[in-house]
Amino acid sequence: MKVAGLISGTSVDGVDVAICDIDDREIQLIAHDTVPYPREVRAAILAASNAYTHTATIARLNFLVGELFAEALIATAAKHRIPMQSIQLIGSHGQTLFHEAEPVEFCGRQISSTMQIGEGSIITLRTSIATFTDFRTADMAAGGKGAPLVPFLDYRLFRSETIGRVALNIGGISNITVIPARATPADVTAFDTGPGNMIMDALAPPFDRDGRQARAGRINHELLERLLRDEYYHRPPPKTAGREQYGEEFLKCGIDITTAAELTVQTIAIGIERHKGIDEVIVSGGGAHNGYLMERLRAVLPQTVVTSAERGVDIDAKEAVLFALLAYESYHSRPCNIPSATGARYAVPLGKLY
Amino acid sequence: MKVAGLISGTSVDGVDVAICDIDDREIQLIAHDTVPYPREVRAAILAASNAYTHTATIARLNFLVGELFAEALIATAAKHRIPMQSIQLIGSHGQTLFHEAEPVEFCGRQISSTMQIGEGSIITLRTSIATFTDFRTADMAAGGKGAPLVPFLDYRLFRSETIGRVALNIGGISNITVIPARATPADVTAFDTGPGNMIMDALAPPFDRDGRQARAGRINHELLERLLRDEYYHRPPPKTAGREQYGEEFLKCGIDITTAAELTVQTIAIGIERHKGIDEVIVSGGGAHNGYLMERLRAVLPQTVVTSAERGVDIDAKEAVLFALLAYESYHSRPCNIPSATGARYAVPLGKLY
Repeated sequence: MKVAGLISGTSVDGVDVAICDIDDREIQLIAHDTVPYPREVRAAILAASNAYTHTATIARLNFLVGELFAEALIATAAKHRIPMQSIQLIGSHGQTLFHEAEPVEFCGRQISSTMQIGEGSIITLRTSIATFTDFRTADMAAGGKGAPLVPFLDYRLFRSETIGRVALNIGGISNITVIPARATPADVTAFDTGPGNMIMDALAPPFDRDGRQARAGRINHELLERLLRDEYYHRPPPKTAGREQYGEEFLKCGIDITTAAELTVQTIAIGIERHKGIDEVIVSGGGAHNGYLMERLRAVLPQTVVTSAERGVDIDAKEAVLFALLAYESYHSRPCNIPSATGARYAVPLGKLY
Repeated sequence: MKVAGLISGTSVDGVDVAICDIDDREIQLIAHDTVPYPREVRAAILAASNAYTHTATIARLNFLVGELFAEALIATAAKHRIPMQSIQLIGSHGQTLFHEAEPVEFCGRQISSTMQIGEGSIITLRTSIATFTDFRTADMAAGGKGAPLVPFLDYRLFRSETIGRVALNIGGISNITVIPARATPADVTAFDTGPGNMIMDALAPPFDRDGRQARAGRINHELLERLLRDEYYHRPPPKTAGREQYGEEFLKCGIDITTAAELTVQTIAIGIERHKGIDEVIVSGGGAHNGYLMERLRAVLPQTVVTSAERGVDIDAKEAVLFALLAYESYHSRPCNIPSATGARYAVPLGKLY
């Protein structure tokens, strides 16, 4: 089945499009592109994210973002000469405007909630392809945090009869999906290990290309040891690291970029080492492009370290591929959240179909 | 098929629940109830409707209203001893927070949009019943105004091989659905004829029970004649009357309640008389409970005038029944907007399924 996955992430850069061939055994990425948002739209989305705004703005953005998602898919298909009629299904994550994983008291009830925009009926009517949207709400309705959803893709891609694997994603924060050999979905664990690129990015904006600055410096071992004592790293999962843990307040400790890189590597190692029988670590996310970080991971981790590209999964397309897969699963009415990762009380199909 | 319809209207009073038996020929209302919102929730919804608010508030309200809609259905089913397992499908309109039928310029595009809350995945997971939500977005994606949707129900309920009918709904505004004998959906016309109860309600708040005050007064014929010259009433459809047409500014003409009732009746008559071959007028909405208004309609209209209750449709349950029917149609992948009523370029199935 040919399925398209669409997402715009929290950086609000544009629409990531993945077109995949999916069956019950395999996921093959055929085409991937990122179509940037018009500058004006990006500004409007950022202004409306987790902020005071008018209901009119959210309603209009929902319809507008739907148009842009549809256009991004049409442009990507055209560029790669994939006939739109050959695509049978779309899974669109949309653009998150709000996400509150922990319940708060609201009108006398405990409510957790999330909001993604990018109107599904617009996407369907512009493309003539059935579209799933709203992939996080059902997991939250089942008591989960609505995230992370990527462990399901990691499980489908990397589960092995013979070797235990960790899928490591190094974005702003680093998170791992632990997939023991012969795992069932219930055996999968996923959590944030600690910082990813965000401290390094803050010290060398927009980012330290290939880790050149980090490689040129020296590790401050005294500071590193102190930072590694943070109880977060030693607490058992489930756990979620917030961007605020590594914000301005954190930078006051005077950390340099080489020590920041090492903190990322060492906390990843701490996160992985509590899991026995892991033979291979598969890296995706921006960090997989950082040669120095990969070198340090290979030096520190006892496991084989490869990029997801080496296992056939484009490093930058992974999230868009995820929503193609989730649409495929929900189309077949199969549950596709991983309760051990999201905290949901039970597994449910995700997404609403128009 | 047993289908539940759920809606809370613009008055934000609570959840209207209708449980119906539906097949391709007939719609049978089995149970109907209105479950009021908690006072605090009603206040929060009103404060967030077409207003500045925080994205957090909208996200939380969406999940909370989903819980309340599910609870309203469960309570109604219990009260009427209808097993929840016997209900196969839910159509939930939700609660409108914003609706903009005419496109506006937004980020360089022409965008019309709408926003209904009441999270469908919450409703499904609390009731274990597949739920359709978001019935207005697809019509708008197809170029329509997302309203009125009720003509489809009128068509299904009242179409006849032998007689032409008008379904008249007297809410704040009055609107009619014209269904010629042997009509196809393309033959149906629907539009607002002019005022309904809103002028009378403003003069005798909250409303003139059974039209007693209107009956006790006298018609100001000079004022009435002047008001009837308003070009709106004589313009051909499609047309939509706004609540602002009959607001504070309008009341400055010094109209009394008896003349207001007569203006409602006469403008309905003008709306109907341009359509030939109409034998029967079927009245629903709050106005159908107003004995004086019904008496005047019977005196003025050449057609037979009956309440929808006399044709087997509970006057107050009609909107909830509509969303049960639309869910049933969309479940069968059948288009169920009426383009001549909404202005859509084509007919489409409505609603997203979780």
